[in-house]
Amino acid sequence: MNRVKQEPETLSINLGERSYPIVIGAGLITDAALLDRHIKARNLMIVTNEVVAPLYLEQLKGALQGKQLHELILPDGEHTKSMSTLNQVLDALVAARLNRDAGIIALGGGVIGDMAGFAAACYQRGVDYYQIPTTLLSQVDSSVGGKTAVNHPGGKNLIGAFHQPRCVIADTQVLSTLPERELRAGFAEVIKYGLIRDPAFFAWLEKNAQRVLSCNPEALTVAIKRCCELKAEVVGIDERENGLRAILNFGHTFGHAIENALGYGEWLHGEAVAAGMVLAAEMSVRLGYLSAVDYQRTLDLLQISGLPIKAPPIGVNKARELMSMDKKVHAGQLRLVLLQGLGNALVTDKYPAEVFTATLQHGFADQP
Amino acid sequence: MNRVKQEPETLSINLGERSYPIVIGAGLITDAALLDRHIKARNLMIVTNEVVAPLYLEQLKGALQGKQLHELILPDGEHTKSMSTLNQVLDALVAARLNRDAGIIALGGGVIGDMAGFAAACYQRGVDYYQIPTTLLSQVDSSVGGKTAVNHPGGKNLIGAFHQPRCVIADTQVLSTLPERELRAGFAEVIKYGLIRDPAFFAWLEKNAQRVLSCNPEALTVAIKRCCELKAEVVGIDERENGLRAILNFGHTFGHAIENALGYGEWLHGEAVAAGMVLAAEMSVRLGYLSAVDYQRTLDLLQISGLPIKAPPIGVNKARELMSMDKKVHAGQLRLVLLQGLGNALVTDKYPAEVFTATLQHGFADQP
Repeated sequence: MNRVKQEPETLSINLGERSYPIVIGAGLITDAALLDRHIKARNLMIVTNEVVAPLYLEQLKGALQGKQLHELILPDGEHTKSMSTLNQVLDALVAARLNRDAGIIALGGGVIGDMAGFAAACYQRGVDYYQIPTTLLSQVDSSVGGKTAVNHPGGKNLIGAFHQPRCVIADTQVLSTLPERELRAGFAEVIKYGLIRDPAFFAWLEKNAQRVLSCNPEALTVAIKRCCELKAEVVGIDERENGLRAILNFGHTFGHAIENALGYGEWLHGEAVAAGMVLAAEMSVRLGYLSAVDYQRTLDLLQISGLPIKAPPIGVNKARELMSMDKKVHAGQLRLVLLQGLGNALVTDKYPAEVFTATLQHGFADQP
Repeated sequence: MNRVKQEPETLSINLGERSYPIVIGAGLITDAALLDRHIKARNLMIVTNEVVAPLYLEQLKGALQGKQLHELILPDGEHTKSMSTLNQVLDALVAARLNRDAGIIALGGGVIGDMAGFAAACYQRGVDYYQIPTTLLSQVDSSVGGKTAVNHPGGKNLIGAFHQPRCVIADTQVLSTLPERELRAGFAEVIKYGLIRDPAFFAWLEKNAQRVLSCNPEALTVAIKRCCELKAEVVGIDERENGLRAILNFGHTFGHAIENALGYGEWLHGEAVAAGMVLAAEMSVRLGYLSAVDYQRTLDLLQISGLPIKAPPIGVNKARELMSMDKKVHAGQLRLVLLQGLGNALVTDKYPAEVFTATLQHGFADQP
């Protein structure tokens, strides 16, 4: 195929009348023609945060021609993903007198995307929203699936909605200003996609981790696109999270316990997921589902990517309590995502309680 | 058909996998077998208010056998339909540690139904909910359509979601304890269904208004069932309010301006809708769409039902400003629901501005 390298890649997410494109490439947020093609609403509220705004807000506004633009700049960080900030977004939408034909642009990472998306889901019972994710994590993880939410003191993402964006514009160039720690944390989710569904992609990552982490544009585009494809495949089979989609939570049930115990934002989400994936993989080894060799490959890839492979000692009881609040508890039994070999995830609530306890004890035990 | 009179009527709302039944009859909230057939969730949060709770909460709980029950009793009134009360409901759901397989029962009028429904829509991104409407208004109006919402200081129902109940249980017996003023206000919506879509039903109402308003069980069942059928027909054609469904807002655009100007709750919703329907009918006469005779029949039926037929003098400018915030504004032009004869509603944004202004002046002008 004689594709010109600079052309952005476009992936179509097929969801009937809620289908939308994901456009991936370098320099997209200043491409006026591209934005005009994909962003139809004339009245727009751009929701962003105080880290992203100085870097990219004016660039984006300059490229959004012929639109009536409003903006809301929120504080940075996971604590922004709250009901009280949601109220602030809703107040801003009302104050701008936006009607049902208006749209919301989320310019930022997962926090901004999740919250602006939830605001779009419930303002006037649903208005259009457009995602411009500015972190690797949100480019690979929030672009597909339509999940929006805010946190509650009782648990992460407890309040939210399924609401699909009208389009996602993933500009790889903006990742060059992302702090290295955040880039690595996002890379944990990239590794997750290899682990749960694509052994060949996992092997590609083993070879190309450093290219991706040094923001090579071609490597980034390959990685982001492949993750979005894999997620789209899973979500296409199971949009509302009744079955297969649960595999996307690989590492997350353990990871959420870490984030919640330490307070959201202490560890980055991707860091908690990395340590959570190690625990899920370890439990898979204990159950005889995963070989020691493949467990070691998992550890190695996470480690060369600069990610944590050991959970903090939050204590077994605390971990168990936090995990029991997880949305994946059905009829009192916690469903877990485990690995049956690299590239093949398994969702199960059939496992001996003592294997789960042993995993928690090894992973979360209080320091001696 | 040799139907025993005491058997409840059941209407099926067909929405694919979100289909649900509406059961209408006397004494349903104490019918343990019926509740058991229709309410599947084992863990339930009953959301109700301090007027309804002393009357019916214990009766309902006694009939819900083998369930784990939680309850939340909120203040009565439209001011309860707020983001801050929504937070209270969500906090209660978290505190009860309810998971995704739990359910919410709304026991009360439209305020409780709309708010508990919205809480169900966004708790864990959607849990089941069951409606037990206890007012005539909510039995005819909130049972079909899946609209849930809370109010915002900037407008009514500005924050919400489409979320279908698992079932609706409309017990006509509970209407016997409803204050007469509320019963009459609910009857305004009953009249609306005749006006917008069923001239024969309108004629039936002209003859049977007093039977319905004196809580005759057969007359109530006929009226409630017919309204739900008519609404289901409209919503079945247009679930997400892109076209036909707008006719259900007949009288509401004018009515919301009244409610908002006076403060929610000063006039009952149905009272504001009654006066709003008169204005919409009057504008229809001005445009030559409705005959003077049919306009008079509309006034007469509202008047013998004890409903207001004259809007309060909130002023033309205030009315216009409040109506411009309406969700039905598209591209700056307010869409109105008018009548082309009794029983035939028309949605239009094509009308001379001066006819709209004349209607506002006649309806809302400040007192001299």
